[in-house]
This record gives sequence, structure tokens and C-alpha cells, in this order.
Amino acid sequence: MRERAMITSMANPRMKQIVAWRQKAKERKRDQIFIIEGVKMYEEAPENWIMDVYLTDTLMEKCKERPGVLEKLKRTGYELVSEDVFQKISDTQTPQGILCVLHQPKYELDTLLKKEKPLLLLLENLQDPGNLGTILRTGEGAGVTGVILSSGCVDIFNPKVTRSTMGSIYRVPFLYVEDLCDTLQVIQKAGIQTFAAHLKGKEYYQDKQFTEGCAFLIGNEGNGLTDEISELAGNYIKIPMEGKVESLNAAIAASLLMYEVHRQRHL
Amino acid sequence: MRERAMITSMANPRMKQIVAWRQKAKERKRDQIFIIEGVKMYEEAPENWIMDVYLTDTLMEKCKERPGVLEKLKRTGYELVSEDVFQKISDTQTPQGILCVLHQPKYELDTLLKKEKPLLLLLENLQDPGNLGTILRTGEGAGVTGVILSSGCVDIFNPKVTRSTMGSIYRVPFLYVEDLCDTLQVIQKAGIQTFAAHLKGKEYYQDKQFTEGCAFLIGNEGNGLTDEISELAGNYIKIPMEGKVESLNAAIAASLLMYEVHRQRHL
Repeated sequence: MRERAMITSMANPRMKQIVAWRQKAKERKRDQIFIIEGVKMYEEAPENWIMDVYLTDTLMEKCKERPGVLEKLKRTGYELVSEDVFQKISDTQTPQGILCVLHQPKYELDTLLKKEKPLLLLLENLQDPGNLGTILRTGEGAGVTGVILSSGCVDIFNPKVTRSTMGSIYRVPFLYVEDLCDTLQVIQKAGIQTFAAHLKGKEYYQDKQFTEGCAFLIGNEGNGLTDEISELAGNYIKIPMEGKVESLNAAIAASLLMYEVHRQRHL
Repeated sequence: MRERAMITSMANPRMKQIVAWRQKAKERKRDQIFIIEGVKMYEEAPENWIMDVYLTDTLMEKCKERPGVLEKLKRTGYELVSEDVFQKISDTQTPQGILCVLHQPKYELDTLLKKEKPLLLLLENLQDPGNLGTILRTGEGAGVTGVILSSGCVDIFNPKVTRSTMGSIYRVPFLYVEDLCDTLQVIQKAGIQTFAAHLKGKEYYQDKQFTEGCAFLIGNEGNGLTDEISELAGNYIKIPMEGKVESLNAAIAASLLMYEVHRQRHL
């Protein structure tokens, strides 16, 4: 490969823009962009999402032992960045040395509803980035066909979320909606059963049938579901809890429900 | 209540000691102490664990509307701390205004093994405080009878752990062991079946029987179980995963396993 110019200064406007995209949901939304880091996240990124790739010399050397990554770099193109500039654009304390600017994907509710036996999650005002990332990761594992987020949820393109998805952000369809109540009703009209884990629930989730299309409502970490949305849910269920436990972490509750669906559908 | 002296300076050696206990596992271990914060964590704390209680005037005022808390404060005693000193001894950005110094509990392996149909978790080198806290919380919910931790695990008395247990730290028995392999063998000799979620696993966890005493091995977030410990496991199981998911978050995996036990034991 011929020698390349290297970006060596944070005065470079693209480096400043990366920091803004990394830090600010508003900037990401305006430009429909998000940022990922690390070799594995780069390897798994769909090529048609990739806009720009930045890497350090040190990582480039390491990539020479990984022909797959090297081939992908040739296809997507890349630019070299000095180690100290990379440290500044990176979100992590010990960056791997590869950062990628990606186009945000677009999914339509219609498409999500047309899948065979949908398994949907409806997240209301979920705030913790780690929880959302874990829900996407576990969701992919359990066979979720789509995740619908209220506009009050944490930004799914937040670097803490994308990192904790471990690549599931590329594969699980998701969608922000302005009015979750409206969307819930559209889902119900499509013949999908809706379930809320709620104090009103009399039946344990393992006693319900999830073999047909279904959607689960998951609420905010501190406050649970709003009355407005939980009143619209078709079914209330409960997760059994021993001891003095009053509720489970949102990602744990979602995971138990999704895997119960998986169990029932694979008996 | 008569007027009380108030601690108004960080020069107070006890305030310095609290900061050291909060920040350093070594200091907590030496003195067999841990620190909790917040009204709910104080309310649920077993009285014989409580050594010192510190609160602000503002919180004292609020407690006047909560007779239960006020009664407990009379029994355990307390000292007033100025708002600015409290901000410094607190671990949180917006402290509630109550902090409590507690004695660490002591549990014995023998006692854990003697319970009827034990449901044990064996955690090897678990590093993330949030994961450990969530495991305790979900564990209590699922009816875990004990959690055994390798010495390489994060300190369970770390404020980030205790906070995310939501009070389960008071109710789920736990134990650090020097040699997890030794302990695993002791557990097996006591007739408890041991299970490792592992690539070697051929059977899905839902196809195994957990109605008798059982113990699950959960490994480090990045590296999973060491070969040393996984070779000793009596049974390998796997969690089904769709898509390209290679593994689940440690707390999620533990929760799915524990709740499957709960399901089978309550059919």
C-alpha cells in the first residue's frame, strides 16, 4: 500500500464533528449518523452503513494478520489518525484504534408487523444505556423480530448502548415512535397480543401462551410503565418473585419474557 | 428531641474513615465494614448489622412523616452531618441525606449446603458491579439460597454493588472463597448437581432437571469460565441463541438459569 496522509490534529473539522456525534444525540439525529469503535464492531458493520473509517498505524499493523479485516478496509476505505488524536475522538480509555462513522438504519413499523409470528418489545422511557444494549443483545439471542422505543427512551445510538449490544444493533430492527399508545393500538389491530408485566397481573408469564405473535411492554427503570400505556395493554402478567423483591431490573424482566417465548416456540 | 451537635467538618476522623471505606475494598475488608446510602437501604438494613448512622437536617425533617423510619432511628441512634460534609462522604451526586456504616455479615458454606434443595450460584471472577448487584437482586427473586464468589470477583460491598442489589444484599447469603475449585468439589460431595453454561454443552438448559439441589457456574464477563473450573463441572448446558449472538451478559445468563429452576420447582 502506498503511503497515506495522516490526520494529526484535532483542528481537523471532521475530528471535531466526530466528537460532537459521539457526545450529542441531537447532532447524531440531525445528520442521521452514529459512531462505533473496535475491530469486532467494524467487522460486523453492514458495508452499506459505513461512511468513514479512521484507524491508527498500530491497529493497521495488527490488521495485517487479519485478512478479512484488511479486505474489508480496502473495500470501505479508511484514513489514518495519529495515536493522540485517536485518543481524543475515542469514547474509551484504552481505544482499540478503529472508529467508524455509520449511517443510521431506517425501519418501518409495517415491515415489523408483517413478519411471521412477530416477537416485539415496546420500551417506554427506558433510561439506562446498558439496559437498552443488553436488551438488544439478549433480544437477538431470543429471536426478537423488532424493538419499538418511545421517544423518551435513551438514544439507541449512544456509544454506551451500541457497545453493549455487542453487534446486535446491526441485526435487530428497531424504531422510535412519537406516541407509544398509538403504536400499541396499531400493533393490536394487526392481531398481535400485547402483554404488560404489571402489579395488576394475576397470571404468571409461564402460564400464558406466546406461540403466536406477541409484544411485551417494558417500562422505565425507576417508575415502571405509565398508567396511560399499561391501561391499553391487552394482558397483564407477573413474574414470580420470592423474598422481598418488588421488581426486577428492566433488562432482566425483558430477557425472562423473551426467552419464555423462545422456549414455548421451540418445544 | 433535644438539640444535637452536628458534624460540620471533613477534618472529623470518622468522616475521613467513611470515605476510605466507601472507596477502598481493602479498608472495608480490614474492618469488616460496608457503607450504604438512602432511606430504603436504611429501612431494610438488619438492625444488628448497623454500627453508625449519619443524616442531614433536611432528611431528618422528611423522616418526621415516616414514623417507621423515625422509630428505627431512635433505636439505632444517629448523628447529624451538615449538608456540605454529607455531599463529601456520599457516593452519589444527589445524596438522599442518610448514610449508614454496617458490619459485614458472615455466612458459612456448611449452612448453605444444609438447606433443603439448595439453589446456588458460583461466580468466577465476575468484574462488573452492576452485574453482581443485579444477580443478587434477581437471585433473591428466583429463590437462590446462596451465592459463592471466587476471590477474583468484584467486592460485593462496593457501593455500586450494594446499591444495585436494591436490598437483596441483606437477604441473600453469600461467601467469598479462596479456591473455587475446592469449593465446587465440596458442593458436589454434598450431592448438589453442578452445571456450567459452556460451549461444550449439548443440552439446552430447559431440557435439564433442576428440581433437586443444584449449582450454576457463571464466568467472567469477557472470558467466561476458566478451563480449570469448567472441567470440574458435572454438567454442561447451553442457552439457545438465535442470530449471531455468541454469548449473553453474565447477569442475564444467570437470571435465565435461576428462573428456569424456579419454574420447574413451581410447576
